[in-house]
Amino acid sequence: MELISPTDSMFLIGESREHPMHVAGLQLFEPPADSGPDFVRDLHQTIVKNKDFQPTFRKHPGSLFGGIANLAWAIDDEVDIDYHLRRSAVPSPGRVRELLELTSRWHGTLLDRHRPLWETHLVEGLEDGRFAVYTKIHHALLDGISAQRLTIRSMTTDPDDREIRVPWTLGPKRATKELAESRSLLQSITGAVGSVASLAPSALSVTRAALLEQQLTLPFRAPKTMFNVPIGGARRVAAQSWPLARIRAIKSAAGVTVNDVVLAMCSGALRAYLIESHALPETPLVAMVPISLRAADEQDAGGNMVGTILCNLATDTADPAKRLDAINTSMRDNKKVFAELPRTQALALSAFLMSGIALALVPGFVSSAPPPFNIVISNVPGAREPMYWKGARLNGNYPLSIALDGQALNITLTNNADNLDFGLVGCRRSVPHLQRLLIHLEDSLTDLEQAVGVAN
Amino acid sequence: MELISPTDSMFLIGESREHPMHVAGLQLFEPPADSGPDFVRDLHQTIVKNKDFQPTFRKHPGSLFGGIANLAWAIDDEVDIDYHLRRSAVPSPGRVRELLELTSRWHGTLLDRHRPLWETHLVEGLEDGRFAVYTKIHHALLDGISAQRLTIRSMTTDPDDREIRVPWTLGPKRATKELAESRSLLQSITGAVGSVASLAPSALSVTRAALLEQQLTLPFRAPKTMFNVPIGGARRVAAQSWPLARIRAIKSAAGVTVNDVVLAMCSGALRAYLIESHALPETPLVAMVPISLRAADEQDAGGNMVGTILCNLATDTADPAKRLDAINTSMRDNKKVFAELPRTQALALSAFLMSGIALALVPGFVSSAPPPFNIVISNVPGAREPMYWKGARLNGNYPLSIALDGQALNITLTNNADNLDFGLVGCRRSVPHLQRLLIHLEDSLTDLEQAVGVAN
Repeated sequence: MELISPTDSMFLIGESREHPMHVAGLQLFEPPADSGPDFVRDLHQTIVKNKDFQPTFRKHPGSLFGGIANLAWAIDDEVDIDYHLRRSAVPSPGRVRELLELTSRWHGTLLDRHRPLWETHLVEGLEDGRFAVYTKIHHALLDGISAQRLTIRSMTTDPDDREIRVPWTLGPKRATKELAESRSLLQSITGAVGSVASLAPSALSVTRAALLEQQLTLPFRAPKTMFNVPIGGARRVAAQSWPLARIRAIKSAAGVTVNDVVLAMCSGALRAYLIESHALPETPLVAMVPISLRAADEQDAGGNMVGTILCNLATDTADPAKRLDAINTSMRDNKKVFAELPRTQALALSAFLMSGIALALVPGFVSSAPPPFNIVISNVPGAREPMYWKGARLNGNYPLSIALDGQALNITLTNNADNLDFGLVGCRRSVPHLQRLLIHLEDSLTDLEQAVGVAN
Repeated sequence: MELISPTDSMFLIGESREHPMHVAGLQLFEPPADSGPDFVRDLHQTIVKNKDFQPTFRKHPGSLFGGIANLAWAIDDEVDIDYHLRRSAVPSPGRVRELLELTSRWHGTLLDRHRPLWETHLVEGLEDGRFAVYTKIHHALLDGISAQRLTIRSMTTDPDDREIRVPWTLGPKRATKELAESRSLLQSITGAVGSVASLAPSALSVTRAALLEQQLTLPFRAPKTMFNVPIGGARRVAAQSWPLARIRAIKSAAGVTVNDVVLAMCSGALRAYLIESHALPETPLVAMVPISLRAADEQDAGGNMVGTILCNLATDTADPAKRLDAINTSMRDNKKVFAELPRTQALALSAFLMSGIALALVPGFVSSAPPPFNIVISNVPGAREPMYWKGARLNGNYPLSIALDGQALNITLTNNADNLDFGLVGCRRSVPHLQRLLIHLEDSLTDLEQAVGVAN
């Protein structure tokens, strides 16, 4: 018996039949030169033999005191691996385009709450000989940062290390695990009540005062855009890699951070997309930018420990250099607020900002109220070096997050060796021609290069 | 604005996130000898060009008076065909086994209620050069009988007729359509209220009296079996064809109907499966056998007009001949009850029998109450002659129906030229080794052949 923390529980309660609350990753691998045509099937056959599953990959919602849902985890002793690990193939002609169509469908369907809340798809049939892995896991089990970390840990930097590791056999660090196992039910309850208490009005009002004092960009000031509407059940995903060197060159020339450049790149793309759709608002878009609130010893503890910063995207500004500058200022000011807050209050602030998401569950709210922010743009830590899995090189590693009522588009990215890999998720109806955003991202990056004088 | 009839509405209200209420079909086609490798892609490209959709394929639940769900249909003007018509491929080695794994996943996921309630998958990559089509449609739109009829109508008996027809462009017969279109909202409401009234207690009590008089097998007498348990969200499907000639030979030798032989074949297989699982109850299993209540002019009217008969499967009897005889007697007696009832009362009787399904929605009911019947076995009319689609021969046509709480296994079959094609759907957890039932069906058929003296 393990209680679900209030933050984690929100992702279960907030999930409706057509608004899944899972995070996912799509990985593209290039098999080693010495591999045969059965490489992926062999991989599959090796993986299914393993019957050892870490607790995170055995959890699904149970009921407390015989009936109350979404408050306690059930932990299965056995996992039906043939259900969770699935083989698929890309239809002809086997381009990445067909792969993304399959991925869009998988990303739009719910996880089965009767089973541990994850699925992994091994995908063959790409025309260039690569294969893909799509993994989705419920946000109540792991946030995107932890999911990425676990994925990277299942790989190696050594192309000759042919041992096959999978996220579900990799446990959290030993110390944390023993700590978790030694917790009694009572301690769990106390812990849960404690975190609820930290979200009490007094904590919130302290936080809010701090925010006002520091002139933080506040919720409920963001303009209403085409992305801030009720959404349907179908999704589209898009994915592309950009060389990290291009972003770093801009960063150095402008004296900003990598993340500032990424946000400016997204801002320019969103501005172009909105102009093209005749839907650019006069006031600038506000992005919610998640940041990790984990202490070092909690890196693999599972669950959700994510804080959030609101960033002025300056989409009302045509000049790329001025936009980059405004973003840099906004991020710097708001990070300072966070740094000065005790961690409980930082969490409370995040909860306050995220209340916009909770409000999306109130019928009619999304269509009438101004959104707390316009889009979530999340930069998740990835691999710094080239990674391998049974000798197969990780070519692309695209994080795919959540679209929800009032937040029809999500941009998440991660670093993968020399690249930044972007994963876009949009409501299929509210965000038409999602692939166009990839072109706008490239154009926006080029504009920034020219603006700061690092264009080739 | 079109109101949803109470019977149809039940399939929307009764659907939960992990108990989808759609019926489906899996078809296997053998491309014509003169076809190239791009046959399926060409087929797909031709189909997506068509922008004409019949009302049934544009319907999804709307809201009445701005808020009440599941009572009125919204009819979309435009249909996003790229969403509804999907291309997929079977992973290596491309056997029917891999196809059925894909089908199991598709059959376990919900249709998006924001869009017309159907999906069609075109599947390539079978090792023997065949291709497959999996179509699912919500039971609130069409019952299995109408869905099969529409599917057959989209094909032709002429292998040289290469015109491509699809179910969604084929409307109901002209007269019926005009009738439907001329109905006002008021008339729709009156009609809906009329059918509710026919289910009033007085009608039910008349019906019940008739039942008792005719000694009909009544609900709540069926034993509790391993199939009558709460189910999870995942499904498994199994499919196989048997030559109709084998069933007909038994029918003639025993002087019973084809459906009696089919039920006896299922009964023997269920008995063997339950013995193998150490779970055979002492009292015989009761099957619910749907029969059509449509008048001739309503053949294509859409919606649900299905009556039901309860059949004693005599699974407590080891002798195949005695089992066949008991089934024949049970079906004959109960059909007589139906024939003597006015149609409204026949519908009411069905509603009464189906109330067992409605009760499955009451928390705790399934685990405590005896089931009204143990399994639905449905024989849906199919094609009498070999059918073709753009010259591709229809090899197999497997209907796939609904598993639900208390009804973990469903057997549906249809005739396809010289074969009877069986589609089995089971809860992945409650009905282990579903494929074993196919072996038991074959053994059961052989036993019947020997029992009536027609074995080769």
